Amino acid sequence: MSGLQPSEGLSSQQTIVMPLSGIRVVDLTRVLAGPFCSMLLADMGAEVVKVETPGAGDPVRRQGAIRDGLSWYFAAFNRNKRSLTLNLRHPEGREVLAKLIAGSDVLVENFRPGVMAAIGFDKARLDALNPALVYCSLSGFGSNGPYRDRPSFDFIAQAMSGFMSVTGEPDGPPMRAGPPIADLVAGLYGALGICAALVRRGRSGVGETVGASLNNAMISMLGFLAANYFATDEPPGRNGNDHAIVSPYGLFRTKDGEIAIAPSQEQSYQRLVEALDATELRDDPRFLSNDLRVANRRAMNAAIEARLMGGTSDYWIKKLNAAGVPCDRVKTLPKVFADPQTIDQEMAISVEHPGHGAVKMLGFPIKFTTAPCTVRRPAPDLGADTEAVLRELGYSSDEITRLRGIGAV
Amino acid sequence: MSGLQPSEGLSSQQTIVMPLSGIRVVDLTRVLAGPFCSMLLADMGAEVVKVETPGAGDPVRRQGAIRDGLSWYFAAFNRNKRSLTLNLRHPEGREVLAKLIAGSDVLVENFRPGVMAAIGFDKARLDALNPALVYCSLSGFGSNGPYRDRPSFDFIAQAMSGFMSVTGEPDGPPMRAGPPIADLVAGLYGALGICAALVRRGRSGVGETVGASLNNAMISMLGFLAANYFATDEPPGRNGNDHAIVSPYGLFRTKDGEIAIAPSQEQSYQRLVEALDATELRDDPRFLSNDLRVANRRAMNAAIEARLMGGTSDYWIKKLNAAGVPCDRVKTLPKVFADPQTIDQEMAISVEHPGHGAVKMLGFPIKFTTAPCTVRRPAPDLGADTEAVLRELGYSSDEITRLRGIGAV
Repeated sequence: MSGLQPSEGLSSQQTIVMPLSGIRVVDLTRVLAGPFCSMLLADMGAEVVKVETPGAGDPVRRQGAIRDGLSWYFAAFNRNKRSLTLNLRHPEGREVLAKLIAGSDVLVENFRPGVMAAIGFDKARLDALNPALVYCSLSGFGSNGPYRDRPSFDFIAQAMSGFMSVTGEPDGPPMRAGPPIADLVAGLYGALGICAALVRRGRSGVGETVGASLNNAMISMLGFLAANYFATDEPPGRNGNDHAIVSPYGLFRTKDGEIAIAPSQEQSYQRLVEALDATELRDDPRFLSNDLRVANRRAMNAAIEARLMGGTSDYWIKKLNAAGVPCDRVKTLPKVFADPQTIDQEMAISVEHPGHGAVKMLGFPIKFTTAPCTVRRPAPDLGADTEAVLRELGYSSDEITRLRGIGAV
Repeated sequence: MSGLQPSEGLSSQQTIVMPLSGIRVVDLTRVLAGPFCSMLLADMGAEVVKVETPGAGDPVRRQGAIRDGLSWYFAAFNRNKRSLTLNLRHPEGREVLAKLIAGSDVLVENFRPGVMAAIGFDKARLDALNPALVYCSLSGFGSNGPYRDRPSFDFIAQAMSGFMSVTGEPDGPPMRAGPPIADLVAGLYGALGICAALVRRGRSGVGETVGASLNNAMISMLGFLAANYFATDEPPGRNGNDHAIVSPYGLFRTKDGEIAIAPSQEQSYQRLVEALDATELRDDPRFLSNDLRVANRRAMNAAIEARLMGGTSDYWIKKLNAAGVPCDRVKTLPKVFADPQTIDQEMAISVEHPGHGAVKMLGFPIKFTTAPCTVRRPAPDLGADTEAVLRELGYSSDEITRLRGIGAV
C-alpha cells in the first residue's frame, strides 16, 4: 500500500511517526464539515492535499474576519494541508486528479451525491484507480433516500434532526446551537470512519467507502432523549437550562453573579447540601429523592439559591468543586481562553504564517502522549503547493507550464 | 499483536471483517462519554468487554425510562458489548483485570486522573503488561492542569467552554444544548484518537496513550466563532436563531407554520428571491449585499416572510429545496423518526433483547459500504459474560467458582 512508503514530499519533521504519518489524503472538500474532517486527519500526521478551484479556492478563504489579507477562519481549519489548484472541468485537470487518487490512501469529498460520478469518478473508476482507497463522502443527508439531492446547511440539520426541538426555554422558540455543530460532528464521524477503515485496510489490504452526513450526525446526538422517547412514546420538550430528570441542576445566582451547578447523582446532591451547610434540606419531605426534587424544582432551586446568595461565585466554585460537586461559571470566550486550564491544555495555539504574522487558533482536543498532534505547516496560500505536488506525481517543468497554460491547474 | 489473532470468543458473525473486527477493548467506563466511545468502537466491530462492579454495574442501568426491567438508555449505549463483573477493590479482581489488559488491544477508562494508578495500573504497569496497548483516558478537563482533579459533568462543560455563551437569544440567558453534547463529542474524540493510534500501531507495533476531555471537546466546537474572536478581540454574543454574519437566515413564518431557511452564500440568496418570486428585492438598496442584509436584517426578514405567508410550509420546503435553498421545519422527535429520510438512513433500529422484547434505539451515523456497522449482540445483563470471559483468560470452572466465592468477580 502506498501509505507504507514515505512520499517524496515528506519534510524532515514527518520522520517522527505520528498516528497517521505517511497516510496520503486527497481532499476535495470545502467550507466546513469536510475541511474539519481533513484537518483532524492532518493534525494527526496525515499528508493532506487540498484540491481547490484555480483562482477561487475554498470560499472560506474570503469568510470570517480577515487580517492582513488572511481569513483566520480559513487558517484555523486548513493548517497542516497543502493546496493544489485543479480545474476539474478540464479533462487534463481530471487526469491529474486520477493520478493523485491512484497514489493516495484516502479521498474525502463533500460534493452533493452524484457529482463525483458526473466528473468521471464513479465507484468503478475509483476502484480501478486504487482498489485499496478509503473513500469518504460527507453529505447533508447521506448517499440515498428522498432528500439525498437536497442542499444542506448546518442550521437546517440542527432544525431537522430534532436537536433544536429540545434546546431552548420551555416557553421560548426552538434554539440552534451557536457553533456549527452539525458540520463539526459530521466531520468528526467522517474522520472516525476513515481511521477505522484504515485499521481494516492495514490488516486486510482492502479499501472501503465511508459516508457521514450532517443530518445523521445530529440525530446521533439525541442520546438518552431518543432512548426515553422510544421507550415512552412521549417526545421530550425544551427544558432551558434545567435537566428533564435531574434536580437541582442549572444556573443559580450567587452574591455577585451566577454559577452552573450539576450534581449528577444522589451522592453529589448529598455533597452539595453538605458544602452549602444546608444539611437540614435532607429531612425536607419535598427533597427526599431526585424525583421529589424534580417535582418541587422551584422550591428546591430557591432553597439552594438562598444559601448561594451568602457567598461569591469564586467562593462557591472553589468550595463546591472541592466537595465533588461539578460547578463553574458560564464563560464568555475571553474568559475561556484566559482560563488557566485552557492555557494548560494548550487549547489556543499560535501559528506563524509567513507574510501574515502569528495567527491564533484552537488547539488539539485529542492528546497523544508519545506522538502529539502538531502544526507542521500553516494553512496554504491558494495553489501554493501545485508545483510540488505535480512534481511528486511525475510531471516535468514543461508539462506543468503547459497545464498552467491551458488552465488545467 | 493480539488483535491479529481471532479470540476464542468470536461468534460466527464476526468472521465478517468489519473495520475493527478482532480489536479487543477493555472498557472501564460508565455513564456516557466512555460508554459512547466504546459503543462507537463496538458498532464498527471491536470486541468490547465492559467491566462493571459486581451487584451494581453502570449507574445508567437504573437511569432513564425503564421498560420490562430494562433501561432503554442503557440498552442504546451498550449494544455490542459483553459484561464482565470485576471487583477492582479486591486484589484478585485486579489480577483478572491485569490478564484482560495483557490480552487486549485497547483500554478505555473515564475515572478521574489518578484513579488508575491508585488501583495499581499506572503507566509503567500498563507498559509492562502490554507495551502495544492503546490506552485512552476520558476525563472532564484532561490529565493535567489546575482543574484536573475537579469533578465534571456535561452541563458544566457546556457552561465553561464558551458554548453556552454563544447559544440562546440575545436578550435571554446563556443556553445549554438539550442533548449532552459535551459527553458525546468527548466520546467521539476518544474513539477517533483510539482508531488513529491503532493505525500507527498496525504499522509500527507501538502502543499509545490517548486523552480526550469534555472541556477540550466543547472548546474545539467553537469553530469560526473562536477564529473571529482571535482575529478581532471582539467576543461573539448570542444571536438566537439568527446568524451573526449571514442574512437572511433563521426561522420564518409561513401560511400554516414556520420553516428554517439558510441560504449560505450569495448564490443561494439569489436562488431564494427567485423561488419566492421576489426578484425585485435584488434592486432594493437595503439588500444589495450580505453585509447590507445583515445591517437591515429586520426589514430583510419582513420582506421574506411577506412572501412566505402566501404558501404553506410544505409548499415552500419543496419549492425552496428544489431551487437549491436549504430549508425545512424544526422537527420534534416523532417527526424526525417518521421522516422518510431518517427511515431510509435507518437512524432508528430495533434490537431484540431476550426477555425484554424489541428495543428501539438510534442507528449508525457512519455508513460503511462493504462492512457496515451492525448490532451483533444486545446490551448485556450485568455480568452476563463473566464466565465466558474468564474462561477465555484461562480460568477453570473451579477457579471461577472460587473467584465468585471471595467476591472478586
